[in-house]
Amino acid sequence: MSEHLDKGNGDRKLEIGMVIFPGFTLQDLAGPQTAFGLHANTHIIWKNMDAVPTDMGVTMNPTIAMRDVPENLDVLFIAGGGGTPEIMKDQEFLDFVAHAGKTATYITAVCTGSVLLAMAGLLDGYRAATYWPFYEPLIALGVEPSYERVCVDRNRITGGGVTAGIDFALQLIAEIKGKEAAEFTQLVLEYDPQPTLTSGHPRSARPEIVAQIQGLWGRTDEAVRVAKAHMATRVNSSRVTSV
Amino acid sequence: MSEHLDKGNGDRKLEIGMVIFPGFTLQDLAGPQTAFGLHANTHIIWKNMDAVPTDMGVTMNPTIAMRDVPENLDVLFIAGGGGTPEIMKDQEFLDFVAHAGKTATYITAVCTGSVLLAMAGLLDGYRAATYWPFYEPLIALGVEPSYERVCVDRNRITGGGVTAGIDFALQLIAEIKGKEAAEFTQLVLEYDPQPTLTSGHPRSARPEIVAQIQGLWGRTDEAVRVAKAHMATRVNSSRVTSV
Repeated sequence: MSEHLDKGNGDRKLEIGMVIFPGFTLQDLAGPQTAFGLHANTHIIWKNMDAVPTDMGVTMNPTIAMRDVPENLDVLFIAGGGGTPEIMKDQEFLDFVAHAGKTATYITAVCTGSVLLAMAGLLDGYRAATYWPFYEPLIALGVEPSYERVCVDRNRITGGGVTAGIDFALQLIAEIKGKEAAEFTQLVLEYDPQPTLTSGHPRSARPEIVAQIQGLWGRTDEAVRVAKAHMATRVNSSRVTSV
Repeated sequence: MSEHLDKGNGDRKLEIGMVIFPGFTLQDLAGPQTAFGLHANTHIIWKNMDAVPTDMGVTMNPTIAMRDVPENLDVLFIAGGGGTPEIMKDQEFLDFVAHAGKTATYITAVCTGSVLLAMAGLLDGYRAATYWPFYEPLIALGVEPSYERVCVDRNRITGGGVTAGIDFALQLIAEIKGKEAAEFTQLVLEYDPQPTLTSGHPRSARPEIVAQIQGLWGRTDEAVRVAKAHMATRVNSSRVTSV
């Protein structure tokens, strides 16, 4: 898919826009940002330059406000996080994502960020992966679910939850810069994972652990409600348009 | 080793101090912080409250200045990063780490943070892991190297480079809060790694990729130089003391 990338700019640095929001998950951003940072200018994007709180009590700083983000990003990326149901209702945020998506070469997300891409209309007709407890809102938005760790569907590349961002980033770097660049990145990150337990996915975790987290993510219900309301509005407005 | 932890506080939240510095690696911090955040108050520590730049062009904010860090932290943690050779020479930084280490229950680091623990005198007589290109300065500081992904030596727990922080954090949570808490954390983080390449460690990466990064980390030479100068000073001052 390198035709997406070769804009005749040779070895110029990639421009990667990474959108965050109050309640994003630090690890969702950090895996991709640390990996991309070796090859790209990474722009951390929020509405303004205020510090943005994660869902775990710390804050990061944007590097650029939405109004200043350049057109034609090589990669548009959205993190996920516990603040997803709230930001799904933020039209200014969704409008920015839709706008940036118009001219970005790759449109990407990890974790619940996929649901935000879908809310912005950028996954219509595409398959996508998301955070394991968040497939229901993704499906409610009409997106075909992919249960892969990383889903590549044309120029839409999406990852599963949180730490899937590392696998996602390495695969995107392989796609854009080639296999050797991905190998280089993997070794810089010493990505030689050695989990000692098998609780990383519902397919291998103990059912009582899965249930605990589904309880924690009652937030999924709120996301489904917002997704369904959004789809109802879209159907109504397309009816109005076609009259 | 749970005798280290049971201070008779029952299920109170853990207090975890996470030290950063200019040129830290975002992923070094983010894996552990996202994992610990489910179970602990995580304090992001720097000298003051100014934003701290990572080694990849973005900034995070401390939550507490060194002078305000409470005694008796459950866990003292230090991230690593490209700024390591410079911060190795910062006596104020090392004094803080040594001081906080006196009353912390667990003394921990990932990546080149282990070298900083060693500079602060907190790894004397202990084994430790570090970032793969950084064993030489660790050894120069008299620390017995461990080539494990996560090294547990009594209450010193250290991880390998960058993404090893995720394995490190899960193991520390298992140690402190038990296996079920670690399983819960692993599933929240969807830590089900699926690298598609085998370039995560020098033992499996192609030699030319290893060489590329050794070139990038000419910083190791500077760290070795600082470590040797530090040890020479220690030997001299112990001679003075014993006279």
